[in-house]
Amino acid sequence: MVEAEPLWWEQLGSCFVRHYYQLFESDRAKLADLYIPESLLTWEGDILHGKESIMKKLLNLDFKKIEHTITAQDHQPTPDNCVLSMVVGQLKADNDHIMGFHQIFFLREINASWVCTNEIFRLSLHNFA
Amino acid sequence: MVEAEPLWWEQLGSCFVRHYYQLFESDRAKLADLYIPESLLTWEGDILHGKESIMKKLLNLDFKKIEHTITAQDHQPTPDNCVLSMVVGQLKADNDHIMGFHQIFFLREINASWVCTNEIFRLSLHNFA
Repeated sequence: MVEAEPLWWEQLGSCFVRHYYQLFESDRAKLADLYIPESLLTWEGDILHGKESIMKKLLNLDFKKIEHTITAQDHQPTPDNCVLSMVVGQLKADNDHIMGFHQIFFLREINASWVCTNEIFRLSLHNFA
Repeated sequence: MVEAEPLWWEQLGSCFVRHYYQLFESDRAKLADLYIPESLLTWEGDILHGKESIMKKLLNLDFKKIEHTITAQDHQPTPDNCVLSMVVGQLKADNDHIMGFHQIFFLREINASWVCTNEIFRLSLHNFA
């Protein structure tokens, strides 16, 4: 059986996701390259506008060490050839309990580079009855 | 204290989300109005392209009755004035256990109507150690 060529948005999205979490875990300051002045990040309901505010938020998150495990990721092209990615996974920050999270990225090609113009992050906290 | 005017994308996104789950629970066939021939839906990893395929999928989901409870929703405008919405919640289908889910919508204004060009749905299933 011949394996199908991965679709370009699948390839691009999964490549971005791998790169993002690698940088997030090893050298968060380098995430700056992924954002532009128009980027928006909503982090647990807190809205940050622009590379500078986003990086300030990310660099001041209250843990020293973090590990992510991705449970599922989905990618789609939008009608104007951007890429929309949704990640669901688990994270472990310092010695805290493992927590579920979900995160989305909206990726756009600008001057031959792919950047993240929109990102939303939430921990998966439910009050199950 | 004067309450701030809700931002247009917050208003639009939360209005769409309310409308979507109301129709989903009461009359799923009416969801067809929210999609266009270019719409993409990824439902638990299954990719559907176009209003017709999407509606076939949604109308054939294997439950009679479903209820959604939204835990959190976030909305953002994209640089070209689309709206990106992320919902995390819980659902109860027929007599099954309550399950967490997350879902994203990418909304675009076309001919003075807002439609959903991209949607991704996943149940929040993790294998916690």
